[in-house]
Amino acid sequence: MLNPADERLEKRLPFGVLRDVAPAYLEEPRGRYHGQAGLVAAPHDVQEAAAIVRACADAGVAIVPRGGGTGLVGGQVMPEGPAPLILSMERMTQIRDVFPEESVMVAEAGVTLQSARDAAAAVDRQFALSLASQGTAQIGGVLSTNAGGVNVLRYGNARAQCLGIEAVLPSGEIMHDLKRLRKDNTGYDLRDLLIGAEGTLGVITAASLVLAPVPSESGVAMIVVEDPAAALALLSLAQARMAGGVTAFELISGQGLRFLDATFPDLPQPFLERPQWLVLIEVGLPAGLSADEALEGLFLEGSSAGLVSDGVIARSGQQVADLWAVREMIPQANRAIGAIASHDVSLPLSQVAKFITDAGDMLASQGDMRINCFGHLGDGNLHYNLFPAEGRKREEYDGIRKDLSRQVHQMVVDRGGSFSAEHGVGRLKAGDLAHWGDPVRLSAMRAIKSALDPKGLMNPGVIFPV
Amino acid sequence: MLNPADERLEKRLPFGVLRDVAPAYLEEPRGRYHGQAGLVAAPHDVQEAAAIVRACADAGVAIVPRGGGTGLVGGQVMPEGPAPLILSMERMTQIRDVFPEESVMVAEAGVTLQSARDAAAAVDRQFALSLASQGTAQIGGVLSTNAGGVNVLRYGNARAQCLGIEAVLPSGEIMHDLKRLRKDNTGYDLRDLLIGAEGTLGVITAASLVLAPVPSESGVAMIVVEDPAAALALLSLAQARMAGGVTAFELISGQGLRFLDATFPDLPQPFLERPQWLVLIEVGLPAGLSADEALEGLFLEGSSAGLVSDGVIARSGQQVADLWAVREMIPQANRAIGAIASHDVSLPLSQVAKFITDAGDMLASQGDMRINCFGHLGDGNLHYNLFPAEGRKREEYDGIRKDLSRQVHQMVVDRGGSFSAEHGVGRLKAGDLAHWGDPVRLSAMRAIKSALDPKGLMNPGVIFPV
Repeated sequence: MLNPADERLEKRLPFGVLRDVAPAYLEEPRGRYHGQAGLVAAPHDVQEAAAIVRACADAGVAIVPRGGGTGLVGGQVMPEGPAPLILSMERMTQIRDVFPEESVMVAEAGVTLQSARDAAAAVDRQFALSLASQGTAQIGGVLSTNAGGVNVLRYGNARAQCLGIEAVLPSGEIMHDLKRLRKDNTGYDLRDLLIGAEGTLGVITAASLVLAPVPSESGVAMIVVEDPAAALALLSLAQARMAGGVTAFELISGQGLRFLDATFPDLPQPFLERPQWLVLIEVGLPAGLSADEALEGLFLEGSSAGLVSDGVIARSGQQVADLWAVREMIPQANRAIGAIASHDVSLPLSQVAKFITDAGDMLASQGDMRINCFGHLGDGNLHYNLFPAEGRKREEYDGIRKDLSRQVHQMVVDRGGSFSAEHGVGRLKAGDLAHWGDPVRLSAMRAIKSALDPKGLMNPGVIFPV
Repeated sequence: MLNPADERLEKRLPFGVLRDVAPAYLEEPRGRYHGQAGLVAAPHDVQEAAAIVRACADAGVAIVPRGGGTGLVGGQVMPEGPAPLILSMERMTQIRDVFPEESVMVAEAGVTLQSARDAAAAVDRQFALSLASQGTAQIGGVLSTNAGGVNVLRYGNARAQCLGIEAVLPSGEIMHDLKRLRKDNTGYDLRDLLIGAEGTLGVITAASLVLAPVPSESGVAMIVVEDPAAALALLSLAQARMAGGVTAFELISGQGLRFLDATFPDLPQPFLERPQWLVLIEVGLPAGLSADEALEGLFLEGSSAGLVSDGVIARSGQQVADLWAVREMIPQANRAIGAIASHDVSLPLSQVAKFITDAGDMLASQGDMRINCFGHLGDGNLHYNLFPAEGRKREEYDGIRKDLSRQVHQMVVDRGGSFSAEHGVGRLKAGDLAHWGDPVRLSAMRAIKSALDPKGLMNPGVIFPV
């Protein structure tokens, strides 16, 4: 449905907008939602962004903020209702400043995560947020969804790596809060409120990001464990030995390795006989320690404790890349196989192992299927994905798909977990949030939404169901 | 002024409240404000706390939440208007659960910081938040003010060390968000909104707190530096070598050491000739490294770079305590000397050294006084306190006190800093926030306050001036 306000809106905008909307603006990676074609506006700076938001507020046109478009919960498209204005941050790609001596960088929303990481590396620092889609994902989107990734264990999620933001609020006013301070207790934390608000409370246009020192010594190992409980016990040993030096601790299942065999047969895998469970561990250590020796020491301790049975330590940069490739190709293998249902859940660490057992049992009783459970074990974050049994098609599961997901999420919630660990709510899980969220928290969220966006024009349908 | 609603309120409350209010409930450490004597209610659990808040909401009685009462900005007393109900968390002192395998603890708001730290130590973990008043300060207050302290550099402030909260909102409803998850992207971050809201958006009644591994190796050194710029250069070297293992980096001035000489002459100080500037550095390192060797290596590198001239490394637990005592007794020495004005400011790290020079020059032109500048240099957080010149009385500065503070804060704000780094806004700085805060941010803060507390009964006068 074309938006009758579009023409009026277009006249008011202080610079050209696109009328012929490229299909890419209307898509999201999993193809679940298809956006309405309205206007696309791509401001060059925050003043233009503010002018666009003001014009939309006046015209009563909804706004869908758009970064790299890599989000997995449909937060970047609006399928229903009058077509919105798509506010793309693609032209705000400046790294405004890098302060190596402060370990801070100020980047605009349209900077890709990879560019931000490269700019940090250029001054011998790291921007530690890292995820598979970093070549396309943009800082604004990464913050708006409070993205996680593989280094949360050591460096925290996006929220923990941001000191300040500049944002356009739904009123079209610019909030200047681009501080570069480690401590600033001057009132409510609007930064953390906008981070993770998925564009429903305003548009982040720039951010000051925390850089971290590059550890003097780093290393990667892949270690075979009996089961997830053993993996968690190994994590405990590692944390005790490394004083916070464990930067990644990823769980990989035998099912994932077999999916890789089927879809990427040339990908080198370290263990000829595919183990049932393994972990990828990465450490970053101070000068004076050898990462290899630390990983060997951990392996020996794990071995004495009966936790580990085999392992490899990367001995070159190439081997580091090869081990990481095993982990990072799993989502692509999954897409090639074709999931019945995907879940991005988190659990209290003490509940993870039991959940994996219990959920496996529950699903076995529901039908014949394959489970690929992998993810950021150190954060209690599992990507728990269901696939058709060998030789069967995903369509055969259409009738039970929703119910399976509901049951998986219910088991997660019953154990104090979250049905959205790192991907956000978007449209996909707005109903889940309404169902499982604490009602008092939800009602406070709605009060805040109404207070800041009384017309409900910022990314409607996201977080709150329409 | 007695509150006419008190009697009505008292009848409605489901359990006894105190009518004879002990003076301690009406005091704050610096004696700037004196609270009105109203009712004091001390709930045993969150249901009672909710009932009290509901009763106050119905009766239109304001609530002042109270923890250990150690806050330094007057957030714990209400001097003006009809007497409020003082909601003391002193009876909610349960540590509900400790999960060593998750490195999480669930503690009620009335647990003292010291008790929380002890409970963590009992399971071979640490609760890393540490500050001078930890024997009295309570978890609820520490979170409500987003307290900082000496370990922020490595572990973050209170906000970074909390995974979830239980809180009573101004409506009297209980928000259950006591998650123990490292990742949970299910909507707005109300946890971080209530943390640091200083009791103006509700009352935190319990929290899940992050525990950290106790580093295998730790050590403390005190190192003499030429000036704050050299101290910051040394911090950079330390960060590069230690891969995040620097847990504290505190600046101490010669003025502070001389104040200690004058007020605590028996306190052992490591350098006979009092240096002009020194830093206390604490490191926590992985197994396999010697903290002493790491500190020696840092000292040698700093020495080659011309940054350091002398230093001591603590060789025993007693020496660690002695070095820390030098840092931690400074606030007491300051109180004994009697400050003209105290400032809790933060700056971008690259601005710290120049600020110290510029502010010193500015103040020298305003009159004869002594400056004790010390604090958490690694966080860019300075306690920048002004004292009468030798032989003069603080009263002699009464006429210029406010103006001096205004000028110091203006210099901080001009350099991208904050006029309240770790103590919060309270009543003391509500005017400063109104003056220096970003107007758009302030207006969003007010909108949120009105949305969640439409009657304005939660800690009125705090953050927003009455």
